[in-house]
Amino acid sequence: MTAQARRTDPFELEPVTDPGRRLVALAERHARDLAVRAPKHDREARFPGENVAELQRSGLMAACVPEELGGMGVRSIHDLVVGINRLARGDGSTALVVNMHSNVPWLIAPQWRAATAAGDLAATAPLEGLLRAIVDGQVIIGAAFSESGTDMLHPLLTGTRVDAGWSLTGRKVFGTASGAAQLLFVPFRVAEPDGGSRTLATMVPVGSPGLEIVDDWDALGMRASASQDIVFRECIVPADGLTDLGAWGEWSPLWLVGVISNHLGLVATFLGIAEAAREHALELVTTRRKAPAGRLLAERPGVQHLIAENEIDLAACRAMLTRTALIADACFQAQSGPVESLDALHSLHKDFQCTKWLVTRKAIDIVDRSMTLAGGAGYLNASPLARLSRDVRAGPLMQPFSPNEAFEYIGKVTAGLNPILVG
Amino acid sequence: MTAQARRTDPFELEPVTDPGRRLVALAERHARDLAVRAPKHDREARFPGENVAELQRSGLMAACVPEELGGMGVRSIHDLVVGINRLARGDGSTALVVNMHSNVPWLIAPQWRAATAAGDLAATAPLEGLLRAIVDGQVIIGAAFSESGTDMLHPLLTGTRVDAGWSLTGRKVFGTASGAAQLLFVPFRVAEPDGGSRTLATMVPVGSPGLEIVDDWDALGMRASASQDIVFRECIVPADGLTDLGAWGEWSPLWLVGVISNHLGLVATFLGIAEAAREHALELVTTRRKAPAGRLLAERPGVQHLIAENEIDLAACRAMLTRTALIADACFQAQSGPVESLDALHSLHKDFQCTKWLVTRKAIDIVDRSMTLAGGAGYLNASPLARLSRDVRAGPLMQPFSPNEAFEYIGKVTAGLNPILVG
Amino acid sequence: MTAQARRTDPFELEPVTDPGRRLVALAERHARDLAVRAPKHDREARFPGENVAELQRSGLMAACVPEELGGMGVRSIHDLVVGINRLARGDGSTALVVNMHSNVPWLIAPQWRAATAAGDLAATAPLEGLLRAIVDGQVIIGAAFSESGTDMLHPLLTGTRVDAGWSLTGRKVFGTASGAAQLLFVPFRVAEPDGGSRTLATMVPVGSPGLEIVDDWDALGMRASASQDIVFRECIVPADGLTDLGAWGEWSPLWLVGVISNHLGLVATFLGIAEAAREHALELVTTRRKAPAGRLLAERPGVQHLIAENEIDLAACRAMLTRTALIADACFQAQSGPVESLDALHSLHKDFQCTKWLVTRKAIDIVDRSMTLAGGAGYLNASPLARLSRDVRAGPLMQPFSPNEAFEYIGKVTAGLNPILVG
Amino acid sequence: MTAQARRTDPFELEPVTDPGRRLVALAERHARDLAVRAPKHDREARFPGENVAELQRSGLMAACVPEELGGMGVRSIHDLVVGINRLARGDGSTALVVNMHSNVPWLIAPQWRAATAAGDLAATAPLEGLLRAIVDGQVIIGAAFSESGTDMLHPLLTGTRVDAGWSLTGRKVFGTASGAAQLLFVPFRVAEPDGGSRTLATMVPVGSPGLEIVDDWDALGMRASASQDIVFRECIVPADGLTDLGAWGEWSPLWLVGVISNHLGLVATFLGIAEAAREHALELVTTRRKAPAGRLLAERPGVQHLIAENEIDLAACRAMLTRTALIADACFQAQSGPVESLDALHSLHKDFQCTKWLVTRKAIDIVDRSMTLAGGAGYLNASPLARLSRDVRAGPLMQPFSPNEAFEYIGKVTAGLNPILVG
Repeated sequence: MTAQARRTDPFELEPVTDPGRRLVALAERHARDLAVRAPKHDREARFPGENVAELQRSGLMAACVPEELGGMGVRSIHDLVVGINRLARGDGSTALVVNMHSNVPWLIAPQWRAATAAGDLAATAPLEGLLRAIVDGQVIIGAAFSESGTDMLHPLLTGTRVDAGWSLTGRKVFGTASGAAQLLFVPFRVAEPDGGSRTLATMVPVGSPGLEIVDDWDALGMRASASQDIVFRECIVPADGLTDLGAWGEWSPLWLVGVISNHLGLVATFLGIAEAAREHALELVTTRRKAPAGRLLAERPGVQHLIAENEIDLAACRAMLTRTALIADACFQAQSGPVESLDALHSLHKDFQCTKWLVTRKAIDIVDRSMTLAGGAGYLNASPLARLSRDVRAGPLMQPFSPNEAFEYIGKVTAGLNPILVG
Repeated sequence: MTAQARRTDPFELEPVTDPGRRLVALAERHARDLAVRAPKHDREARFPGENVAELQRSGLMAACVPEELGGMGVRSIHDLVVGINRLARGDGSTALVVNMHSNVPWLIAPQWRAATAAGDLAATAPLEGLLRAIVDGQVIIGAAFSESGTDMLHPLLTGTRVDAGWSLTGRKVFGTASGAAQLLFVPFRVAEPDGGSRTLATMVPVGSPGLEIVDDWDALGMRASASQDIVFRECIVPADGLTDLGAWGEWSPLWLVGVISNHLGLVATFLGIAEAAREHALELVTTRRKAPAGRLLAERPGVQHLIAENEIDLAACRAMLTRTALIADACFQAQSGPVESLDALHSLHKDFQCTKWLVTRKAIDIVDRSMTLAGGAGYLNASPLARLSRDVRAGPLMQPFSPNEAFEYIGKVTAGLNPILVG
Repeated sequence: MTAQARRTDPFELEPVTDPGRRLVALAERHARDLAVRAPKHDREARFPGENVAELQRSGLMAACVPEELGGMGVRSIHDLVVGINRLARGDGSTALVVNMHSNVPWLIAPQWRAATAAGDLAATAPLEGLLRAIVDGQVIIGAAFSESGTDMLHPLLTGTRVDAGWSLTGRKVFGTASGAAQLLFVPFRVAEPDGGSRTLATMVPVGSPGLEIVDDWDALGMRASASQDIVFRECIVPADGLTDLGAWGEWSPLWLVGVISNHLGLVATFLGIAEAAREHALELVTTRRKAPAGRLLAERPGVQHLIAENEIDLAACRAMLTRTALIADACFQAQSGPVESLDALHSLHKDFQCTKWLVTRKAIDIVDRSMTLAGGAGYLNASPLARLSRDVRAGPLMQPFSPNEAFEYIGKVTAGLNPILVG
Repeated sequence: MTAQARRTDPFELEPVTDPGRRLVALAERHARDLAVRAPKHDREARFPGENVAELQRSGLMAACVPEELGGMGVRSIHDLVVGINRLARGDGSTALVVNMHSNVPWLIAPQWRAATAAGDLAATAPLEGLLRAIVDGQVIIGAAFSESGTDMLHPLLTGTRVDAGWSLTGRKVFGTASGAAQLLFVPFRVAEPDGGSRTLATMVPVGSPGLEIVDDWDALGMRASASQDIVFRECIVPADGLTDLGAWGEWSPLWLVGVISNHLGLVATFLGIAEAAREHALELVTTRRKAPAGRLLAERPGVQHLIAENEIDLAACRAMLTRTALIADACFQAQSGPVESLDALHSLHKDFQCTKWLVTRKAIDIVDRSMTLAGGAGYLNASPLARLSRDVRAGPLMQPFSPNEAFEYIGKVTAGLNPILVG
């Protein structure tokens, strides 16, 4: 058997639709260039502008825009996830940016299709405008979910009703791609007449008065993702075109669909990082020899053991992720009708959280073992493993849920209890 | 959300063919009765004769016999595996017996189909005879692979050429179902003229002169599987109808296909045992209350944490097993032509060994946590958990490979090295 | 290096006082006989009467009785723990019984010493009577802490004031040694005038009217420990000689000292079981050879890996247990004065719970790997490993705390929060 | 209980000799300043010159120099290890440098004592010169053990006999403190007349002709340790004052004593890093509150669980390290006579490797959980956790043995086999 045999790995994630196959082929081509530039972007903590420009030119940034509008027409979340996975093998930060961006066209394309089918021009126009702008490379979409001192379900960014719409004040953190986006998706809290509160969301153009993107992104890893702080100081957004995410502090179907679809791509990003590390380590131990015997490193029992541990973890990650993404596709399609079941979505979200926990944890383990396989050389910044070990660590920090919380959520949903966590 | 929501688990193994769906429905019906009888069979270490009789009557023992011959016509190894999984939820020992038995018709049905299609009556007749005997409930097939002091690839049971065929002498151990079978599948070693040796296999009728089945099965678990020692003392078997498994000590395509197809069902058995334990524990913590607060056990943080750990492991096991079994189906179908690729089969076997290691290990963990969830009550023999904890421990002991060895094999295949282990 | 080198393991638990050294030497002698009889007691689920009789004759059952009264004079809880550890290498059930029994003289000997020093004859007499009865082999003490549906801090066994003392009604479970003891230590709940309740404890003679010991002990393991159910039906106990364990549902210093001192020996029992399994497996792999190469099993890389995993776990268990027991000795001596600090005891209890979790968990892992090392042979009931795997599983079930709960307790104490668990 | 209660942790490493107590008190004072400067040194990958200057002024760099010569007189390796542990809580790189440096006076002080006691002035003088130079702050000692493409037992740096001594040619890597040392300890290989080869070692003054220290240190972590490459190009060293480390490729007593004594301090360094991370995380979760409930983070079940996992791991690390270091002290003292037992040292080395594997692995886990406890904030470079997570990863890479190899070594020594690894 040749060493290449391992590369025909049947557990590999593979697209299941034609648009997906086109996306993945394209992503694999891009990944090679991304990998070349990744060390420089990492060192300089600089947004990979040339990467994104290339991805716009090739059409990949329009992966989820309908073909009728000039996009690639990917509808399957599974296949989008596979494409993101391939990009991440080249550069995790870029994959993170592309995933966050692509989630919006993936979410609104069905609305555009429905509005078009219904001949509802009023509804069609704004959606179509945004989708075409993505195709034309005029818009990158960033996200601003996280805030310090609270969780995603309880945004503290406050919207106050004013004549022109809503006036937003507060601060978001970890705003992926915010350093390069034209539009930011922003959830905020508004008071309701009955004393309760509600979570709305809107798309805020970068450059709006009262919106400051702080050039402060200096993290352990994912350094090219421009995940900057965003300060809102009486930033006015229009009252139309808002998304109602439901009662503040509660899971609505929209929240769940958004989180699951977006985060499947995040998980695929960390899997891709782990795959790159594993490939690097395998290449190394199947080509390097060591004194005194001069045999391949891979001939050593301890090396074989580590390789095998990585294969087991990798197989589990891939099997879980592909299975969950296919289930999500089925679930989302089944729910394209009028009524969505919150229970079914919690059940899917529980499965997704199992997958997220396992994949982001095992991805860290795979990179860690890859560094052990490489020995001291992998600890030097000249090795991609040093960067990959920093990038992959972001995985479990993505909300919801941190490993602090995932067990509680999974346990509660499984036991049929109210899935709201102890605050 | 109701507690039942958890039972619509989308990670559940599901059949993908029509015969598979019929098999699984049937297996689920049987499983209920099997579960009722399991404690008694376990206590008495007695072969579950009435179970097997029922499975013969319902046709389940002929799951893999072609429909034209009166069987259920299951061709997909994936679907056979799902059926075995369902039986194992009722009784692991019975599932073990059914799996070992069913592997033979699964392996020879394609031969029968090919011979029939070619009009080769000479080849058709003996295959058809055996397949019909299975349908008629006249034959249960057991297996006798293992021996003490050696591994499966190096059988020490010796065949010596005599006029009437081959004279077998030696001892097999862990002969699943040997205490109740009519036929035993037995590999043995023969010398070759060039000084090398070869592994042949044959089906030996129970009751043959020189064949003694020792009534000695007294194990920690799987106590109803009648996995007895089998002593051969100049036991004569005919020279025709032998299966050539290749050079002694080397992997042939036949060995690999046989091991993978048979052991997927073994793995499914241990998954089924874990599923039964998890179900029992979930039922308990969602219904029992404890002083002083009187709330459900499932309300406690530690309980939720354990439930979640089980869900993650269970999801990984199911995703891995179903994925591997589907890949095996594709691989076996691709190889139904004349040439089989040893490399491709080693690659599949590597994937299977990853799956086997993970599932048998995590199955033990799931049962262990289920016992922790049940508390002291689960440690009493009155609880099914005590039996399940003993049954599930057999998983990693199934050859090839023990956990001693699986890492070495996986590592070597992945690195493109010769996959023969250090002896 | 010879294979014996491993037996001079410097991590071995070793006694630190002279009486401790005598105890350990004696325990090691007994352990050999205990090991011979263990299979039979296990099979028959029978109390090891002849073991205990021998231990009474040799004086080991009086390990903690002062030398002046004819005992061995062991004061160090560390050294008692080492002695229990040695017994457990021979038979876990017997070690469990001896530990439960020995805890009482260990607790009351300081009271006797203090009373004697103070010349307080009234206080001295009953203590001395009991201690001498232990020396004379007239008394084995069992314990009855656990109840179904509640935890140790919240006993539901109810004491009602009657003229003759207290009338007890309720049911205890897992009463270690109850099938053979002359006296049982029994906590129960009494109502207080202010509407609250309190936990008292007393020693109940077996044979008392209204006390029934149910001959029902049939568990997965620890089958010779006679840990039977105990039913109280208006069983009258005298009102004097009671121990006040504090407010019902709250930790008092007495509770903590009792739990820590008693459970250190339990933990040592499970360590001893693991050590016996590891020794058995090491003996096997350093003497058995396997076809085709005929080399020792220990020459195989996978076997070496498993051995090493066991050594790491074993070293951690021993280091943790000996360190915690020495700290406990220091803490208990520091507190022999009038004032005991509940905070200091919770801190010690937290450390103990870390130790208990690690040792009982790793002991299971060590036995599990030992079975893997032994292969299928270890799964047969003819192997001690089958029994050890059942015995060792009792470890994490011992209250307080189950693994359900230990994390919460440790986390709360470490964070300086109220250590009472979510009920 | 107050949150401070956790800081009276009885598992804390504590010195056992008077010089050790003085060292530890001094190290704790220094650690505070080290912690303040650590971020800057890390960012700039700059040797912490001012730290070392302060440590020279306070006398800490002369910890192991005899008191008669002006040093602190620490003889116990255990106590040196505790001092290193305290420094590492402030800055891992500095602790690494101090440990590497201090190992030499620790090793030669007994030689000086013996020579002085014997009145052997010829032997006393050079030792005394070096020891006094350390006290006077004239000498920092670095080490140059590692080379690329080989392991420590098989140095490829070659010594060729010339008139003036030995001419060294080759390249060392990971030369801790080499960027700031005055002397480097360097093992090299020489040919023997019989065709074999031998490993010698010498102290090479920085600045020697033919010695180049490459200013290239740019690693993931331990960035202030100046662990640079060192190139030897016909660098001449004198023939006297050499240390004979035995046959090339074989373990000698000197190798083992050197490795164990030096690496105990390395392990203590990584424990100190983990302790700093844990302290930071505990501080955070016991003071920060989160919306909507506004309760302490430590009130959450998932947070308590993570805290507890850290406490268990930390307790195991501390118990293992202190136990092993005390055993090493006993072993080294027992061997100060003429004959050292290679078997006894391998047994000790095996125990040390168990400790090293556990502590360096668990230290990574503790820092990882601390980052999870801190959430996204811990992933920013503004947090010490980001640096600690990079520093701690160096632990398992320290030779011998990498985790690739440690299992094989431990397994072989335990089984009584030849402890040389498969090459």
